Amino acid sequence: MTDTHILHELAQVLEQRKQGDPDSSYVAGLHQKGLNKILEKVGEEVTETLLAAKDAEQSGNNDDLVYETADLWFHSLIMLSHLGTGPDAVLNELARRFGLSGLDEKAARSNGTKSSS
Amino acid sequence: MTDTHILHELAQVLEQRKQGDPDSSYVAGLHQKGLNKILEKVGEEVTETLLAAKDAEQSGNNDDLVYETADLWFHSLIMLSHLGTGPDAVLNELARRFGLSGLDEKAARSNGTKSSS
Amino acid sequence: MTDTHILHELAQVLEQRKQGDPDSSYVAGLHQKGLNKILEKVGEEVTETLLAAKDAEQSGNNDDLVYETADLWFHSLIMLSHLGTGPDAVLNELARRFGLSGLDEKAARSNGTKSSS
Amino acid sequence: MTDTHILHELAQVLEQRKQGDPDSSYVAGLHQKGLNKILEKVGEEVTETLLAAKDAEQSGNNDDLVYETADLWFHSLIMLSHLGTGPDAVLNELARRFGLSGLDEKAARSNGTKSSS
Repeated sequence: MTDTHILHELAQVLEQRKQGDPDSSYVAGLHQKGLNKILEKVGEEVTETLLAAKDAEQSGNNDDLVYETADLWFHSLIMLSHLGTGPDAVLNELARRFGLSGLDEKAARSNGTKSSS
Repeated sequence: MTDTHILHELAQVLEQRKQGDPDSSYVAGLHQKGLNKILEKVGEEVTETLLAAKDAEQSGNNDDLVYETADLWFHSLIMLSHLGTGPDAVLNELARRFGLSGLDEKAARSNGTKSSS
Repeated sequence: MTDTHILHELAQVLEQRKQGDPDSSYVAGLHQKGLNKILEKVGEEVTETLLAAKDAEQSGNNDDLVYETADLWFHSLIMLSHLGTGPDAVLNELARRFGLSGLDEKAARSNGTKSSS
Repeated sequence: MTDTHILHELAQVLEQRKQGDPDSSYVAGLHQKGLNKILEKVGEEVTETLLAAKDAEQSGNNDDLVYETADLWFHSLIMLSHLGTGPDAVLNELARRFGLSGLDEKAARSNGTKSSS
């Protein structure tokens, strides 16, 4: 399979976990705690990403930067899911800006948000 | 085409623009200004994303949230590019964590960072 | 005069400027643009403060760190002012936590917020 | 006593705790963990402050905003202390910008940073 199905697959996993038991699922637990707790995690992860980027510039080693950026994207997917949208809407917006071939109409519509074009 | 080629296509566009004229290309200009300026933009965009998420919860309209998250992901791609890595390394890390089918070895190696597994 | 009247004096200056002409006063302009714009500035300044702290650790020079922290505190005072409170409420809360001699009751009451003790 | 001695008193408390036992003192523990951990706390607290400000605008209640801003200022004082400076340098910079009466020269010099004027 191609590399870039990953965000889409991950979004499906996150939707399933959203319905899970808050006591055993980290993702379900975050949704139960509510939007502020999810946004606090996004804020934490961006700080760790910035610090990892500064350290990567010094050390030449990107391992922590990649790890923290993964945490940032992961929690931003939970944020999108909590508010009823998902990565397709964001990727569609990026495709629109850069004239990339983009999503098909069906994928875009299924996100519950229209393109801002 | 599938939706999820977009991040990969966008990363290629960003690599091309990195080599462009800093006076006419926003991306080349950011690279010339250096890592701190790129990270300031990441910080700005995450703040705007958090505020858009709070407003979306009130209004039920996700348009601004999608737009600001696109800005956040876009600037985090420039950050990764500036430090010599890219979205494949981050997607590979997410695939590893969630047991997704993931990248092929060639794509992973070409990122210049090894999996942190 | 003592050093620490400064925050109090500054808060008074900021209250005056809040009533000023948005076209000629930066502070009045921020209030007119609204809370989101003020919070975006707080977010920008904290990012610049974190980057300055990382650079200060490398260089041993704190000039930028002090400058950016001043920007951060300044914009957090505008945020407090926009929402009808001020530095006394925050200083009172810090005094309460650390058993410091603190504000007199009159100063605390005039902030329009009660101690969270 | 006047309200605004509080930051100065608090900075003295923080300098004492910096020398304390990392196992029993939160402040000493943060210093031992290093600058990144301190900056992560600053980043966490600014996110909580922004969310509290958005919620205060809706509810008209500033209690959480005051509490979170106190956390933000507190951790920014630890950051300054970790890098060998303190609130006087920041207050002096604010006084310089706004033409306030400011610190005396002795207080400014004792901060180990010169004014950036």
